[in-house]
Amino acid sequence: MVGMRGAYGYNDNGNEGGVVVGGGEAEAEIAAMAVLHKVAAPPAQSTASKLKARVKETFFPDDPFRGFKGKPLTTKWVMAVQYLFPILDWVPSYSFSLFKSDLGISYAKLASLPPIIGLYSSFVPPMVYAVLGSSRDLAVGPVSIASLIMGSMLRQAVSPAAEPLLFLQLAFTSTFFAGLVQASLGILRLGFIIDFLSKATLVGFMAGAAIIVSLQQLKALLGIVHFTTEMGLVPVMASVIHHTKEWSWQTILMAVCFLVLLLTARHVSMKWPKLFWVSACAPLACVIVSTLLVFLFKAQKHGISIIGQLKCGLNRPSWDKLLFDPQYLGLTVKTGLVTGIISLTEGVAVGRTFASLKDYQVDGNKEMMAIGLMNIVGSCTSCYVTTGAFSRSAVNHNAGCKTAMSNVIMALTVMVTLLFLMPLFVYTPNVVLGAIIIAAVIGLIDLPAVYNIWKMDKMDFLVCLCAFAGVIFISVQQGLAIAVGISIFRVLLQITRPKMMIQGNIKGTDIYRNLHQYKDAQRVPGFLILTVEAPINFANTNYLNERIKRWIEEESSAGTKQSELHFVILDLSAVPAIDTSGISFLIDLKKSTEKHGLELILVNPTGEVMEKIQRANDAHGHFKSDSLYLTTGEAVASLSTFSKMTAP
Amino acid sequence: MVGMRGAYGYNDNGNEGGVVVGGGEAEAEIAAMAVLHKVAAPPAQSTASKLKARVKETFFPDDPFRGFKGKPLTTKWVMAVQYLFPILDWVPSYSFSLFKSDLGISYAKLASLPPIIGLYSSFVPPMVYAVLGSSRDLAVGPVSIASLIMGSMLRQAVSPAAEPLLFLQLAFTSTFFAGLVQASLGILRLGFIIDFLSKATLVGFMAGAAIIVSLQQLKALLGIVHFTTEMGLVPVMASVIHHTKEWSWQTILMAVCFLVLLLTARHVSMKWPKLFWVSACAPLACVIVSTLLVFLFKAQKHGISIIGQLKCGLNRPSWDKLLFDPQYLGLTVKTGLVTGIISLTEGVAVGRTFASLKDYQVDGNKEMMAIGLMNIVGSCTSCYVTTGAFSRSAVNHNAGCKTAMSNVIMALTVMVTLLFLMPLFVYTPNVVLGAIIIAAVIGLIDLPAVYNIWKMDKMDFLVCLCAFAGVIFISVQQGLAIAVGISIFRVLLQITRPKMMIQGNIKGTDIYRNLHQYKDAQRVPGFLILTVEAPINFANTNYLNERIKRWIEEESSAGTKQSELHFVILDLSAVPAIDTSGISFLIDLKKSTEKHGLELILVNPTGEVMEKIQRANDAHGHFKSDSLYLTTGEAVASLSTFSKMTAP
Repeated sequence: MVGMRGAYGYNDNGNEGGVVVGGGEAEAEIAAMAVLHKVAAPPAQSTASKLKARVKETFFPDDPFRGFKGKPLTTKWVMAVQYLFPILDWVPSYSFSLFKSDLGISYAKLASLPPIIGLYSSFVPPMVYAVLGSSRDLAVGPVSIASLIMGSMLRQAVSPAAEPLLFLQLAFTSTFFAGLVQASLGILRLGFIIDFLSKATLVGFMAGAAIIVSLQQLKALLGIVHFTTEMGLVPVMASVIHHTKEWSWQTILMAVCFLVLLLTARHVSMKWPKLFWVSACAPLACVIVSTLLVFLFKAQKHGISIIGQLKCGLNRPSWDKLLFDPQYLGLTVKTGLVTGIISLTEGVAVGRTFASLKDYQVDGNKEMMAIGLMNIVGSCTSCYVTTGAFSRSAVNHNAGCKTAMSNVIMALTVMVTLLFLMPLFVYTPNVVLGAIIIAAVIGLIDLPAVYNIWKMDKMDFLVCLCAFAGVIFISVQQGLAIAVGISIFRVLLQITRPKMMIQGNIKGTDIYRNLHQYKDAQRVPGFLILTVEAPINFANTNYLNERIKRWIEEESSAGTKQSELHFVILDLSAVPAIDTSGISFLIDLKKSTEKHGLELILVNPTGEVMEKIQRANDAHGHFKSDSLYLTTGEAVASLSTFSKMTAP
Repeated sequence: MVGMRGAYGYNDNGNEGGVVVGGGEAEAEIAAMAVLHKVAAPPAQSTASKLKARVKETFFPDDPFRGFKGKPLTTKWVMAVQYLFPILDWVPSYSFSLFKSDLGISYAKLASLPPIIGLYSSFVPPMVYAVLGSSRDLAVGPVSIASLIMGSMLRQAVSPAAEPLLFLQLAFTSTFFAGLVQASLGILRLGFIIDFLSKATLVGFMAGAAIIVSLQQLKALLGIVHFTTEMGLVPVMASVIHHTKEWSWQTILMAVCFLVLLLTARHVSMKWPKLFWVSACAPLACVIVSTLLVFLFKAQKHGISIIGQLKCGLNRPSWDKLLFDPQYLGLTVKTGLVTGIISLTEGVAVGRTFASLKDYQVDGNKEMMAIGLMNIVGSCTSCYVTTGAFSRSAVNHNAGCKTAMSNVIMALTVMVTLLFLMPLFVYTPNVVLGAIIIAAVIGLIDLPAVYNIWKMDKMDFLVCLCAFAGVIFISVQQGLAIAVGISIFRVLLQITRPKMMIQGNIKGTDIYRNLHQYKDAQRVPGFLILTVEAPINFANTNYLNERIKRWIEEESSAGTKQSELHFVILDLSAVPAIDTSGISFLIDLKKSTEKHGLELILVNPTGEVMEKIQRANDAHGHFKSDSLYLTTGEAVASLSTFSKMTAP
């Protein structure tokens, strides 16, 4: 039976395979064959060139140097310098922009660091980013989540209250490693690692973190003095309830007033985007008003805690504070890794969002190098981890600022504050900082996104929920790890249990589609047409093998026309890759179908798959050209003709 | 432009979407439309029923109870009993078979356990398996790799020489946990976990393990007394060279002779499969001859070490030796997990191989329960980890044995040995056991398979090499972990950087295939036709976004006919699944192509993808019916007609 049919064969050159007719058949058969097209193998490539292409697509998917092609050498040099320092691109055409007063002070408290470190971190990093960064909208500075993670991870080993200097050293060292990790990811072009944080993971994680951050503010908002050092929902609420006697009504009153004010301002800006400056100015206004109130009423004597004296002056160098003691090396590297990747994810995501809004491209890997260097410099100038922050960038964007100059202006404002305005903070009450943080992080709880995820994909919703629950009940890092683990497991599961469908012919066409989806598709008698929708590899060959055999068994035993099933067609259009186990599986399947008197036909293998089938053929000759077709339609047409001709 | 074209729309019911013509167009257009087919969504299913189907396909891919359908209740009961105890299936028709004398003694030494434990382990487990197991060819007993891993993991914590009782307790406890893990995987239907050990991983791992095992035999083969307790290639070779003075020429002479004998026997059996009994009987013959030689020449006094006195009697109960002390719990659980999964992989793989040779099905999950229970029972009767062994099963198979009765017979032989023949082992020299082990494990180095992997897939070869190098240079467990990690990383990488191809029309047909693979495929002017060959999810949306935009950019700027590109067609045939991030990506892409005056067309979304596109449509209406087509051919035909009609 096999070999009698004529079919176009593929040949080793991969092109111009002529018509190969098995024996001396009637012309009618040749006519039937004339519509056939051969399955081509992609042109032969050496392993080295394939490897090169693979490496290029994996590490240089953006082809960063494509603009350099065919330019004279001097132009290339100028372009190279511009590539490294994007500031040269836009400095000639910068436009001044509104600045946003931001209080890194608040976020420093989240990391259990002295408030002044927050201000320092709002000064140096924006300057560095203005020189190196490629996003025009990104406003950099400390952010809530990275601060929270750094604080919670370092506090596991060292108490910030008992050993403030050591804690500070560890924070700077972690920042150094975070920068190193970020820059390395950029240089090694491993940026795709941050892609493994899916949207669902981030939505759940952010919401959980927002709640954890807000819970931490209960200390300031309720005026509690003896607060737990733990972060989870349960211990914090226990601590709050346990210390009801420490609650201060003056503090709570102030908290409620300013919180209402800030949330109203936020609501106004969200409803009327033109009034974005309302929520942008609200924090500063609150700080000024509350400071004045405390100063005028001497409220610090009525149970309202204040920031207290802060030293004037710019960032002190801190490279002597970097601590590479083996005892703490593991901790700082781990903290650096986690905060580095998290803050990178936030920074790159924010950069991409605004780039896509304004329709320009952000180079992810260059961005990572910029953010990494910014943190390395920061760790030597008394700063902790910084990145691009969504809220600040949004304000920049709404204010219509077009270049990274906004970062410079922000830095200059902070410089003025550091040099001259520090004494004014003495009377700023901690409660107002708490209110500002809550108002800021409340925006991270994105309920519409959660609803959307729920509607779209229940599994994504589960990932989101796990990230959320993990963060609030277990810990920030473990919640994240669980969510990433589930995301990856899900992807693996899709491959381990790939979708396989039985296809049928759509009446009156030569189109074949799956029976479940297309109600007007009909089974072709004598054929079992299957599609596999995943790479065939070690993780699913056992499953595929068992599943296909069961289908064949069911087909053969169903109904009385047992002898009717002649051909099993495997449509490989949706199989992007195959490995050694996959090829063994195909060969085994071929053999076992032959034992049952069936013939296995492969349809439309893609480039890589075809290449490997051909290689297996060279070695063992399992898949002759007459078991390979370009389309299911052609296979069915050709094989039916043949069946009819050979039927008694 | 959008909306003017007529096209079949999908509708919510998923069938019978009529022709929807946008305006009052000429009949010519309607005629052109008549060839179009609509993209159908799969019939609506509730989340619960989808979840049920997903769970079923994931955990019950073999549909184990399909035979029960439509049978009367009593038959069902009988079948259920037969399902649990496959022995009832074949016992009425068992046939006696040749038995293979096996020396578990040798493998027990690999695990640093007393030789008698190896014999015990060849007695009870085969009996248990004969009752519970579903494979007809599997011969169970101790195997080299699981023995090696157990020995090397436990020795990290406890020295078998210094604390023999504790070591024995830990071995039994690990065996207990191994059985628990195996049975749980079977009961929870999580058997697919062993699928993550790819063929390439196993080939590399086995070869590495064979070398490590052989190296361990150098102690016996060279007669060295002070041997290192480490396993790696480097420390063992260093130890061998360091102790040249301890080498005993008598031992070496004996080693060489028996090794040559055993390898020759092996070679003979491989060349003439009918003579399989030659290599099957060789080990026993060697033991008898060497024992006699030692006894006659009193060779033990000339530097040849012997096994010494072994106690007669059957397995002692050992449940009182199971040690759940928290101090060692972590170690035993970990050892149980690793040895359990490794031995399960071996056992199930061997079972499947022979089942496929004889064309019957082995139920993977039931097999796991059988092996698991066998080990749990074993751990209570002085046995350590056992599983189906390839070499022994091959002998059974060659001997033509058809039922699991062979296991019973083997157990009976071992019973006779245990009861009466133990004193005969007194003079058996250790060197002959070493030679037997080397001859057995040498078959694990499968060079043809390595060459095949190299030819098929360079990346698989790398996995294989890493497993091999990891095992011989680092450690058995870490080598395995590295190889599994690389395999999984590779799968993830394929998804992170999915293949995308530009398609062209194959002349004279309406078939579209990728330009790189099919040389006679031609670009269609005005169209950019892309295929994506992977699920679209969080791990690749950033990449796809950047890559597609770069293609559009290149297309738009290439040549002078810049205005010609009108349509970007995304063929989704090979996209089996999409998640929330993927849907956002499609919506973003739609918007950004519209900004460039292009239109995004989706072709042939599969069931799940179509469903989610439709859901996104319900919410935002991004993908109208006129941007969805069933085939690329129809899309191009329809859109070209339209372009021509609207052209000036």
